Amino acid sequence: MNQMECKQIDAYWRAANYLAAGQLYLLDNPLLRRPLTRDDVKKKIVGHWGTVPGQNFVYVHLNRIIKEFDQDLILISGPGHGGNFFVANAYLDGTYSEVYPNISRDEEGMKKLFKQFSFPGGISSHVAPETPGSINEGGELGYSIAHAFGAVFDNPDLIAAVTVGDGEAETGPLATSWQSNKFLNPVGDGAVLPILHLNGYKISNPTVFGRMTHEEIEHFFLGCSWRPYFVEGDDPMTMHQKMADTLDTVIREIHEIQRRARAGEKMGHIQWPMIVLRTPKGWTGPKVVDGKPIEGTFRAHQVPIDITVGTPNQEEHLRQIEAWLKSYHPEELFDENGTLIPELQALAPTGDRRIAANPHANGGQLLRDLRTPDFKQYAVEIPAPGAVEKQDMIELGGYIRDVLRLNADAKNFRVFGPDETMSNRLYKCFEATQRDWNSTIVEGDEFLSSDGRIMDSMLSEHLCEGWLEGYLLTGRHGFFASYESFIRVVDSMVAQHAKWLKVCNQLPWRQSIASLNLILSSNVWQQDHNGYTHQDPGFLDHIANKKADVVRLYLPPDTNCLLSCFDHCIRSRDYVNVLVTSKHPRPQWLTMEQAVKHCTQGVGIWEWASNDAGQEPDVVMACCGDTPTLETLAAVTILRQALPELKIRVVNVVDLMKLQTSAKHPHGLTDADYDALFTRDKPIIFAFHGYPALVRELTFERFNRNLSVHGYQEEGTITTPFDMRVQNEIDRFHLVKDAVQHLPQLGNRGAYLIQQMNDKLVEHKNYIHEVGQDLPEILNWKWQV
Amino acid sequence: MNQMECKQIDAYWRAANYLAAGQLYLLDNPLLRRPLTRDDVKKKIVGHWGTVPGQNFVYVHLNRIIKEFDQDLILISGPGHGGNFFVANAYLDGTYSEVYPNISRDEEGMKKLFKQFSFPGGISSHVAPETPGSINEGGELGYSIAHAFGAVFDNPDLIAAVTVGDGEAETGPLATSWQSNKFLNPVGDGAVLPILHLNGYKISNPTVFGRMTHEEIEHFFLGCSWRPYFVEGDDPMTMHQKMADTLDTVIREIHEIQRRARAGEKMGHIQWPMIVLRTPKGWTGPKVVDGKPIEGTFRAHQVPIDITVGTPNQEEHLRQIEAWLKSYHPEELFDENGTLIPELQALAPTGDRRIAANPHANGGQLLRDLRTPDFKQYAVEIPAPGAVEKQDMIELGGYIRDVLRLNADAKNFRVFGPDETMSNRLYKCFEATQRDWNSTIVEGDEFLSSDGRIMDSMLSEHLCEGWLEGYLLTGRHGFFASYESFIRVVDSMVAQHAKWLKVCNQLPWRQSIASLNLILSSNVWQQDHNGYTHQDPGFLDHIANKKADVVRLYLPPDTNCLLSCFDHCIRSRDYVNVLVTSKHPRPQWLTMEQAVKHCTQGVGIWEWASNDAGQEPDVVMACCGDTPTLETLAAVTILRQALPELKIRVVNVVDLMKLQTSAKHPHGLTDADYDALFTRDKPIIFAFHGYPALVRELTFERFNRNLSVHGYQEEGTITTPFDMRVQNEIDRFHLVKDAVQHLPQLGNRGAYLIQQMNDKLVEHKNYIHEVGQDLPEILNWKWQV
Repeated sequence: MNQMECKQIDAYWRAANYLAAGQLYLLDNPLLRRPLTRDDVKKKIVGHWGTVPGQNFVYVHLNRIIKEFDQDLILISGPGHGGNFFVANAYLDGTYSEVYPNISRDEEGMKKLFKQFSFPGGISSHVAPETPGSINEGGELGYSIAHAFGAVFDNPDLIAAVTVGDGEAETGPLATSWQSNKFLNPVGDGAVLPILHLNGYKISNPTVFGRMTHEEIEHFFLGCSWRPYFVEGDDPMTMHQKMADTLDTVIREIHEIQRRARAGEKMGHIQWPMIVLRTPKGWTGPKVVDGKPIEGTFRAHQVPIDITVGTPNQEEHLRQIEAWLKSYHPEELFDENGTLIPELQALAPTGDRRIAANPHANGGQLLRDLRTPDFKQYAVEIPAPGAVEKQDMIELGGYIRDVLRLNADAKNFRVFGPDETMSNRLYKCFEATQRDWNSTIVEGDEFLSSDGRIMDSMLSEHLCEGWLEGYLLTGRHGFFASYESFIRVVDSMVAQHAKWLKVCNQLPWRQSIASLNLILSSNVWQQDHNGYTHQDPGFLDHIANKKADVVRLYLPPDTNCLLSCFDHCIRSRDYVNVLVTSKHPRPQWLTMEQAVKHCTQGVGIWEWASNDAGQEPDVVMACCGDTPTLETLAAVTILRQALPELKIRVVNVVDLMKLQTSAKHPHGLTDADYDALFTRDKPIIFAFHGYPALVRELTFERFNRNLSVHGYQEEGTITTPFDMRVQNEIDRFHLVKDAVQHLPQLGNRGAYLIQQMNDKLVEHKNYIHEVGQDLPEILNWKWQV
Repeated sequence: MNQMECKQIDAYWRAANYLAAGQLYLLDNPLLRRPLTRDDVKKKIVGHWGTVPGQNFVYVHLNRIIKEFDQDLILISGPGHGGNFFVANAYLDGTYSEVYPNISRDEEGMKKLFKQFSFPGGISSHVAPETPGSINEGGELGYSIAHAFGAVFDNPDLIAAVTVGDGEAETGPLATSWQSNKFLNPVGDGAVLPILHLNGYKISNPTVFGRMTHEEIEHFFLGCSWRPYFVEGDDPMTMHQKMADTLDTVIREIHEIQRRARAGEKMGHIQWPMIVLRTPKGWTGPKVVDGKPIEGTFRAHQVPIDITVGTPNQEEHLRQIEAWLKSYHPEELFDENGTLIPELQALAPTGDRRIAANPHANGGQLLRDLRTPDFKQYAVEIPAPGAVEKQDMIELGGYIRDVLRLNADAKNFRVFGPDETMSNRLYKCFEATQRDWNSTIVEGDEFLSSDGRIMDSMLSEHLCEGWLEGYLLTGRHGFFASYESFIRVVDSMVAQHAKWLKVCNQLPWRQSIASLNLILSSNVWQQDHNGYTHQDPGFLDHIANKKADVVRLYLPPDTNCLLSCFDHCIRSRDYVNVLVTSKHPRPQWLTMEQAVKHCTQGVGIWEWASNDAGQEPDVVMACCGDTPTLETLAAVTILRQALPELKIRVVNVVDLMKLQTSAKHPHGLTDADYDALFTRDKPIIFAFHGYPALVRELTFERFNRNLSVHGYQEEGTITTPFDMRVQNEIDRFHLVKDAVQHLPQLGNRGAYLIQQMNDKLVEHKNYIHEVGQDLPEILNWKWQV
């Protein structure tokens, strides 16, 4: 890079810094064409500066190499704040004004650009869905590298550059993300270029990476199979030269790795390049304010000069702000209209090559429908309800196998999980593809391949979730199958994704993306040797609280219902779909035709199990989830045998949000429909998969309050599957007892039945402690009425 | 170690392996004194073997160095399963039989030991609260090193050895835990000795660390400031010698570091030693079963030979199991009674030095009461309700400062947080102590010290939570203050700790420990520039689902209430206490006397704000949380001014579980008490801090269904504090409207008031978008009736 180019780069950087600082402060006088007054400045100053100049520096230099190499490249900004940097750059290259025409490339637009930042009704202090070019939100930290890998999987020409904050680098999810390079195929995938941005401080503390020795940092990245390049300093011109040289080197190195691998060379253990960028925090900002050093310290983290109404030294601070902003020389950078001068405009890439306009960062633009087989082909034949046993997840595996096959050429579908694809019984997927593994393969390894599409060789829910999010956000399809209890490890990640989707739904320029599909298998009701630590059905509660237009919860009771639900979810857009599934052998209830109807309605009377035809029932036996359904049906057989005149209605819920009122959730039943199913006053004995609280909350506004919910009560640990149900009182015997207790008209006959149930419970307890297995009559139980 | 010692160590290891394998299989014939029959074997075989022999190896060698150095040492087992290894060793040294006298040190006891494992009513396949000597549960992975550091903080003579599984090492929380050494003070803290156990495979995949090159592993640990020692191989005798030599070296190295530091030497950047132990998975187990290799492969992960009833090759497998078990030569290890022979017994440490009996691992044994000042000394003077403004967290900081001072000598209290102690306004803590920082300190750093007691210099909620758990579990005190939204990062960790506490409460030998206290500040209702990503009050819902005898949720409305609640929590035992607090300037309502009474009751009528004295009110205005309380009181002023004849009762809830029925939660109000407060049928307009769902669920069984809950609806992002309330409809204007809508008797006067409220809402909206701040009448509002 020659001296002239270096000066130009610096000018562009100054423009970005000016616009980013202007966003912090200015309400008016955006080009400082008249002396700055207090009225030109926002009353309350909130936002972040410390990370901004370094991130602008990265952006400006990425622009250069995009042009130099005609490189398809996106930028993921990991630091939690400083979103004004991304907005400034998107504005400089014109993207921002295309997306938001009101923020025009002139003085008037700049004024609006400045005002909206951290201002009521405006934009946040971190990179957010509103920021064009972003697929990673600031705020909750730690997911940048995982998102970057998700973005480049199956995008062989794409580079995802990632600025990782040295605060973010301390989080657990980020710390393990460095290992993602073991899953990057140099042939079929693109590349990730991490740029660890060491500015040395977090909110008010130094950073761990900032205080590691040079040798330690080098060791650390070599240990994680990265080749680190260091760009360190504070003199802008020297730093521009270093950064340009380093970026030229690492981009060439990436291309060379890819060229060799794509030419068929066995690459062995690949060390991908990465950059360690050390710059002062708040670089180019105020040096000293109120006698305290700012640049290069933690004090540069938020606003380096506070001038919020009511704070001291207003006049002095106003002059300091003015001097600081003027130090960027806006008059050299913007013309009389307030538009970036043409020489500088020429430095930015154009069209889709602009980082902020790159279609990968608005993945819906690239989204193609998934090819799906007819799920009905995978139907389990049901000669009679409960007549056959199947393992729902094994059967689903057949459908997924064929999704993998149908989209093998399109390369836009992957399966994610933390070493649990086998444990969750998706065996059949391995008939179509293998596991992605780009580290060493040795004899005896099973199903590993550098181009496998099953991403389950890393034991980290955070990475599974983060990779999948990145994959979806860039316009592809997939799902994450987890143990039900351990999906809670990513509670907060999923919530943040749901928030992202909610905001995107309100932005017309954000194109729809494929839903985030989560399969929660190995569920609470069967954890024979795992016990209490593996029991947590609360993810449903967690997601049910999120915005209703984003979240969907399905609890298919058998294979055919699971096929129908999964097929629906995998083809849907912009949702978080949660599917709670069963992996163990279970009786099958509905024919495919019945299942499709049932899942379409989401809730319905199972007439074959009911005996209230055409009449108001005496009791409603409701169920949701595979195990509750099994026990409810078993309870119904006991009730119908003992009390044949009792009119019982069996209602099964597969779409949980049907329980909520239609005013609150688009899937919610109207009150009339709810009452038609559940009656206005008859007892509802509801066996639910999860915590009873959730059913109580969802049905809170319903008229029929005669509701008794059975669900997980945090009881039971190492025991048999049936005993888990007994301990939590969702087993057939407790359900029968509860129904009878709600039917005082049964009198002595009810009391006798309760006594029988109590005897059964004692018999059960004695048997399992002796034999270690459930009673034969439980193991061999069949639906028969 | 001489040849003889080596043979003895090996014999002890064989005994441990025998007992661990026996637990997997045997119902009877525990010493194999007659040919093994199918009836001697459990019907269903569930459990894990792969990690066991390596962990036994570690245990046996730790026993040796405990004796050699008379070392105070605990062992934390990180791998998710293989808990039978710990049980086997606890049994060998006699601890198990002391804790569980039924499991005696003879053939009968051994039989029971074998039967209970992974058997209904028995113990889990991972290390659990039932395992003496453990403070870390298997199952959910990733917290072992964090727990180990928590254990050794302020225990200068203790070493916590940690076996880290190479699967566990892939999790995010574990990955960042390696950095914990930057927070270990060689003077006042003990040492952590990580032993990364590379057996190469997880459930059905290779591990990332298992496939890193030797150089990469070395680089990785040097990068993290650890000095790695490698012990690799599969020949037992060679490995015993290597492990013994290596342990001698690293223990001496630890002692030498400590000696120098404690002699006053400036140590600079310390590299603590750690061990990389590479052994075959399922070492010493079956080599080939059904034609497939087992030892050294992922197939050794669970049961290497399945013989569950119904599986094929029963007879062949039975013989293989017998041959495998006999390969350990139990007849050489146990005497005719089935007791470990004296020569081997002599290898184990005795008394409290036994790993399984170490008091640190049953921390309640060591727990001393915290010294606390009289919290009433920190009272805010309240001349009249709402007359003064304070920041609750600043005031709480004064109390905590003095807790720090009072316990400075005892060294049993620390403060935890992810770089948020300042942001959460606990400024005054820094008057008593500093931040713990044992990495480099440079000029300009603030409040850093190698012996600081504020653990907030690492931006990882996982580490804060894990360190604190380890600290509490070893008998000390502390709390974790987090942003409310980001506490969700550790949802699953806190749930696992709650589960741990629940189980411990059922184990008479587990002594009570200090509660896990979580302060959720920077809450959903004021996130001016952070916006939507920083809004999530759902942790309350998450915890409310846990076992009622363990969880407590407090939402103090002002400083005096916060002081009262915090003082209660910090002195309590065996709970998970969640405190939702406010950090911004807020009007103060209750005198200390009133606050103590209110917090003791947990819920009560605020008579000074009500005008229903002695009568049934027309409407109950209920509130829970600082912001809802403020808005409710503001709504009450509007209502009382506009409709002076309206009888209004103000009820404030500080202890959320009061809302639940007394049958479900020990704090729950009886129905009579609830009705006395909330009436049987009058409208309750309830302004709640979190998701409305939670109040609906908690009050589900109450008689009065005339309940309208206002709370967070996932609305609002970058905006003013008051506008957040407006967008979620918990502001005074919406509350007034809702109250009026529930009082049809008001007729036209009500309609007029609603119109006024609507006008106010429009005025508000226009003002904030113009000025960027809330209306002066909102900012300057004072309680006045």
